[in-house]
Amino acid sequence: MTLAATGVTTTLALLQTGQSEVLTRIQNDALLSASLWTNVALAGFSALLFLYMARGVETDRARLIFVATILISLVSLSSYFGLLSGLTVGLVEMPAGHALGGEEVLSQWGRYLTWTFSTPLILLALGLLADVDGVDLFAVIAADVAMCVTGLAAALTTSAYGYRWVFYVISSSFFIVVLYALVAKWPARAEAAGTRDIFTTLRTLTVVLWIGYPVVWAVGVEGFALVDSTALTSWGYSILDIGAKYVFAFLLLRWVARNEQTVREAAGRGTARAASTAQDPQ
Amino acid sequence: MTLAATGVTTTLALLQTGQSEVLTRIQNDALLSASLWTNVALAGFSALLFLYMARGVETDRARLIFVATILISLVSLSSYFGLLSGLTVGLVEMPAGHALGGEEVLSQWGRYLTWTFSTPLILLALGLLADVDGVDLFAVIAADVAMCVTGLAAALTTSAYGYRWVFYVISSSFFIVVLYALVAKWPARAEAAGTRDIFTTLRTLTVVLWIGYPVVWAVGVEGFALVDSTALTSWGYSILDIGAKYVFAFLLLRWVARNEQTVREAAGRGTARAASTAQDPQ
Amino acid sequence: MTLAATGVTTTLALLQTGQSEVLTRIQNDALLSASLWTNVALAGFSALLFLYMARGVETDRARLIFVATILISLVSLSSYFGLLSGLTVGLVEMPAGHALGGEEVLSQWGRYLTWTFSTPLILLALGLLADVDGVDLFAVIAADVAMCVTGLAAALTTSAYGYRWVFYVISSSFFIVVLYALVAKWPARAEAAGTRDIFTTLRTLTVVLWIGYPVVWAVGVEGFALVDSTALTSWGYSILDIGAKYVFAFLLLRWVARNEQTVREAAGRGTARAASTAQDPQ
Repeated sequence: MTLAATGVTTTLALLQTGQSEVLTRIQNDALLSASLWTNVALAGFSALLFLYMARGVETDRARLIFVATILISLVSLSSYFGLLSGLTVGLVEMPAGHALGGEEVLSQWGRYLTWTFSTPLILLALGLLADVDGVDLFAVIAADVAMCVTGLAAALTTSAYGYRWVFYVISSSFFIVVLYALVAKWPARAEAAGTRDIFTTLRTLTVVLWIGYPVVWAVGVEGFALVDSTALTSWGYSILDIGAKYVFAFLLLRWVARNEQTVREAAGRGTARAASTAQDPQ
Repeated sequence: MTLAATGVTTTLALLQTGQSEVLTRIQNDALLSASLWTNVALAGFSALLFLYMARGVETDRARLIFVATILISLVSLSSYFGLLSGLTVGLVEMPAGHALGGEEVLSQWGRYLTWTFSTPLILLALGLLADVDGVDLFAVIAADVAMCVTGLAAALTTSAYGYRWVFYVISSSFFIVVLYALVAKWPARAEAAGTRDIFTTLRTLTVVLWIGYPVVWAVGVEGFALVDSTALTSWGYSILDIGAKYVFAFLLLRWVARNEQTVREAAGRGTARAASTAQDPQ
Repeated sequence: MTLAATGVTTTLALLQTGQSEVLTRIQNDALLSASLWTNVALAGFSALLFLYMARGVETDRARLIFVATILISLVSLSSYFGLLSGLTVGLVEMPAGHALGGEEVLSQWGRYLTWTFSTPLILLALGLLADVDGVDLFAVIAADVAMCVTGLAAALTTSAYGYRWVFYVISSSFFIVVLYALVAKWPARAEAAGTRDIFTTLRTLTVVLWIGYPVVWAVGVEGFALVDSTALTSWGYSILDIGAKYVFAFLLLRWVARNEQTVREAAGRGTARAASTAQDPQ
């Protein structure tokens, strides 16, 4: 066996040992495992429930809301299997300055990766409900994706403690753009679309729970480590996911199924408005 | 030289040895190399042929079908060079329980990565041909992307044999959504659009060949290893790619170039229908 | 401690040493650091300036140009922090045949990754200004993304010198598609949209500066290494970024803010044209 072959064998053995080692850690921590399996069960159940609720929905706008919302549950289901298998979890050595500096922390970096796909679907569903125009929706979803990607960068940065917080601040800045739209701009559109009550409920749920994520990061093992427990940090995210994804989706879809006509008329008004703007530039 | 510098030198030497080692393996296996170079040649030739066939195509819908289809060939070309260079191929140690448990298997994980880009283009082209509405197209393409990403997860999971099949089942579930649309929902739209015959041909080709991919995975070295040959597994995917990409594309584009008027009228009906829906919500 | 635990500890220690080692190298090279911090300062300043210039802009098309352009600066800001922290920078051992064969070169591969997000926004802004139709915009942005991804592949390929240039040639081929659209096809659309003068200015700026990137790659440390300096190579990209992103954006937004009416009318004509095409297929 050549030196090269020995080298590659060693590297791959080490990397695969990594994935197996993480899997063993997760399986040996009942509290941590429970935080993941709970979401697998709820994501699977809600996807089936929403499919059932979708029967009889016919208009385009309402169907698109159902499709986006069912996808949220399916992305979440895949995400939690990624964490459970150890594929999207890593042991990260915290840099000097961090409360756990020099120690290895179990980082569930796959959460940030899959939020990049699931949170735009939540904003898409909310935006369709409020009949937001395309430019606003594009801007808010772009800010949301940037928030998730720079959050992933914060989780993976181990070169220096300061840069972890630089990415945290950048990610939070993008989050403020999203919050500004949800709180200051979209309510007026929902009012005009005749969906004010349900939009206000879902908007408040989203704003309150989404603020929870950076709070969990800051107090959990990846931030100040005030709560020095991988399992409790994981439960923090898992509980927020339950509210922001499955409860959110259930309330939204129950309303849409009952008020399909309102959603349809809102879309009609929006299209008519766009057409008149285009044809009468003055 | 400090300990840190020694450390980083060792790691990078090992990782780069990995890419070179894979390249050497591929170059020393003539049957495996042939399965990749054949597709480089066909992808390059078909891209040029399709560019030639595109001359004279003028209407928007037909041009979009040409653009999407030419991109399929170009993504495929880039993908096969990624495999040939060893950049997107890795030696994966199979977990206990796998037929080759403990052995290193050459995994062409780059295939799953690039299918994430090429298969949505195939569905886009088929959807435009059948004049499918935007909500359906969005749903089917989202399921297709989820199928490819969870397929990639199956290929990369080495922590436990069971989790490889968990991702296989999740990926196959997304595939069933795609199949359902192609078999049960889109034919009626193609009928209305006046493109039934060509749609049926291409739909059947796609359904039959796409079913081949999970079959190759299951019988090949990454699944049950009933066919215990990296080269034959690679040929399985390569032959499916030839049919599902270049033959598919040629049949589609030859028809579109000859029937541009039909494609245009279908798009006109679709737009008119959407407009009337929007303006008469009742 | 088991052998497995020793293995994973060793791997992760090595990988994290890698990120810290790169950070130290960057911090010890004042010229290299300056090339990155200059862009952090300019990206941050320009994002604030463009937000200020956006006040009073009301029409959809002009607002979308502002959103896309402000995002260019924010993506750039995040990208440069990724380079500064060492997260998206790596030491790559060049293959035999390369001028620095066997030596380790500091590769700023994060640049290619973030260009995948920022350059489509530049083309989107230019396309909206010229009122380009959707099919053309889709084709050009797809070619642009493929150009960036295959450029990333060129940067990361270390198995063989020849394959680095194979990806360079593929990436350049996609670039030629983009150049062809900018030089040969979009000017006529800009003429019809009444935005010829500003489009010509920005188009020329973009074409000249974008040609600079593959030139820097070819003469810099990653290509022929005619300029054998990581810092000077980095300055090459940084200066191009200043012109192609912030100067480009400033000229575009100043014009759009002053000529909102022209942008609006161009969009109106485009929509009217699309509607008449759809309704009168003959």
